[in-house]
Amino acid sequence: MGLLPLNRRTLLRAVSAASLYGLVGRIALADGRALITHRAAPLNAEPEPAVLRASFVTAVSDFYIRNHGDIPQLSPETYALTINRSGAPPLVLTLGALKTKFKEHTVMAVMQCAGNRRRDMFAVKPVAGDPWSLAAIGNARWTGVALGDVLRAAGVTADSALHVAFESHDKVVEDGETFTYGVSIPLDKAMAPDTLLAYAMNGAALTTEHGFPLRVVTPGYAGCRSPKWLAAITVQDKPSASRIQQTSYKLFRPDVTKAMADPDKGATINAMPITSAICEPVAGAQLKPGPCTVRGYAMATSKRVEHVEVSADGGKNWMRAHLDEPAENPWTWTFWSARLKLTKGNHELVVRAWNEIGQTQPENVTDIWNHRGYLSTAWHRVHVSAV
Amino acid sequence: MGLLPLNRRTLLRAVSAASLYGLVGRIALADGRALITHRAAPLNAEPEPAVLRASFVTAVSDFYIRNHGDIPQLSPETYALTINRSGAPPLVLTLGALKTKFKEHTVMAVMQCAGNRRRDMFAVKPVAGDPWSLAAIGNARWTGVALGDVLRAAGVTADSALHVAFESHDKVVEDGETFTYGVSIPLDKAMAPDTLLAYAMNGAALTTEHGFPLRVVTPGYAGCRSPKWLAAITVQDKPSASRIQQTSYKLFRPDVTKAMADPDKGATINAMPITSAICEPVAGAQLKPGPCTVRGYAMATSKRVEHVEVSADGGKNWMRAHLDEPAENPWTWTFWSARLKLTKGNHELVVRAWNEIGQTQPENVTDIWNHRGYLSTAWHRVHVSAV
Repeated sequence: MGLLPLNRRTLLRAVSAASLYGLVGRIALADGRALITHRAAPLNAEPEPAVLRASFVTAVSDFYIRNHGDIPQLSPETYALTINRSGAPPLVLTLGALKTKFKEHTVMAVMQCAGNRRRDMFAVKPVAGDPWSLAAIGNARWTGVALGDVLRAAGVTADSALHVAFESHDKVVEDGETFTYGVSIPLDKAMAPDTLLAYAMNGAALTTEHGFPLRVVTPGYAGCRSPKWLAAITVQDKPSASRIQQTSYKLFRPDVTKAMADPDKGATINAMPITSAICEPVAGAQLKPGPCTVRGYAMATSKRVEHVEVSADGGKNWMRAHLDEPAENPWTWTFWSARLKLTKGNHELVVRAWNEIGQTQPENVTDIWNHRGYLSTAWHRVHVSAV
Repeated sequence: MGLLPLNRRTLLRAVSAASLYGLVGRIALADGRALITHRAAPLNAEPEPAVLRASFVTAVSDFYIRNHGDIPQLSPETYALTINRSGAPPLVLTLGALKTKFKEHTVMAVMQCAGNRRRDMFAVKPVAGDPWSLAAIGNARWTGVALGDVLRAAGVTADSALHVAFESHDKVVEDGETFTYGVSIPLDKAMAPDTLLAYAMNGAALTTEHGFPLRVVTPGYAGCRSPKWLAAITVQDKPSASRIQQTSYKLFRPDVTKAMADPDKGATINAMPITSAICEPVAGAQLKPGPCTVRGYAMATSKRVEHVEVSADGGKNWMRAHLDEPAENPWTWTFWSARLKLTKGNHELVVRAWNEIGQTQPENVTDIWNHRGYLSTAWHRVHVSAV
């Protein structure tokens, strides 16, 4: 953790250079680690799978970055959060007021992009969006105040309205339209004790690219519902009117094409389904015949991962994986490993996770393929060979 | 619905006779319908699959009955609900006070036993409990007051404690121990707007066997968390100390035998997983070759059933079922049907449901088999022949 500030500065310098020259590729960090960028502007980058699997709490410098627009540079001195409510003037809170007036909470929680593992869908048929591998996910300790406490202080009650809308400072450009990032979450999720307005990540102030000075953390929901650089909150009867809420992050069935998709008919993506991934070995790895350790993560979301199974033959036979680091709470992931014995030849390694009520992932990505490439949570398959 | 009181009286007479003589079998009702009883004392009975599928809102007389003990006969005049809280004397509410002091709510919701479809697990290896077919489930309009409103009136707040415990009037005898039925639910579920203290079912006062005069309705949770004949509510830091909470309704993995099962290590069953079932045709049916209509239900719980797939060849090929009556809200089921063409010979009909975030049921019951036979929600398979 002592290296973090240096890594972050290095990252930002590299990102800034990459943005300038439109480079997409690897951003090398001072200590040899790297983020793989899918796009430089807006910045979208994820760590190598093995880097992700190295630490149960993901270092800030290794945390995936999913931005929709620019990276606002906000001053903590002038920063203020506006809370709009009906029948009363807006409540405006400075960062200092937020920190002193409300009880501080720390929640360990995974943040995961709705497009995590989208690459698996690309393999079936092209989809929209960046081809995220399996690392558009990270687990952090988020510190801030409970959003529910702030809303209650603003006079909001459980039956005030149905939705809590967020507006951010980042400017998004989509199809020639420029707008500020906005989304909403249901009021009951906003009032849940673990939903935070966070100002710190892993014990240090949020970095600029992760939403400094204040972001929302909505545990278990897709990352898009945890906006960074928060500007305003509005309690309202309808979901956010923002283009992000209305047209993005909607799930369609496999047979719905982009041309025929009516955003109003897609399902709004909030809570993420159970998923798992093999971080080591990577796809295409040439291994030696004999023992092989397979490592990865599993994430149940609002439930816990109860067990994880690994197959070396495409799903015909399964063995129970060892839970190296079980979930600390329903919002964190589980780290698992399994020791396989590989014979000479090609092998399809597969993982699937089960939650505590016997739910697991779908077998085939074709059954859940959708033209936007969201929620790619089928059994994770990695083809390797032992030579 | 006009026939209801008659059916109920007939049912109760039949039940009473069956209990007396220890009969287990069919209870014929006046209009020819029947409940299949697994046990007469305590009474455990379910309707025929086709009866269940006939009406989206299940008639009270067709509703499964899952009792753990006797059926208390309570007087509405003397009935009172006690709410125990810390730091204050208990709050005692008569039925009249409950109905006049709090806003009335009606919620349509499925009630489903954790042991529904247990028969499928029996087919793998014997399990504890009654061999429920697929009809330990029903959908009703529940009317009552919001439990959260009552708790708030008793001074309970969102951070008061973690659990809400219920004690009922029915006496349970298990392993020679006699105790009153008790369970608990997490406080946040108790405070959720759709969790009710219900006094009516489908527009009429609760019947005796369904909990008259007052029961809990915890939508989406296993039926055991919706106790009937409610006596007292206690807000407390730990789950209910009742034997039902502590040792029953715990989920174990397939490899945990009864002898090695430590109840403290099982997962407490609350929310039910996604499930579906074929109600028509029934297993073993001899049909004619040609068109065949398959009908059933699907239930997602807290999400909606997004689509349902049916296979006539054991799951090799699937077709999309028609949603005859989609879920009205996340707590109700979906009625579906599919028109298949059966060739001469044996067929394995299969159904699986998908929710709006791409989650489905596990393929094989062996993967989720557990010695108590809970949450039997694998693909539902029905073997029929066309001759």
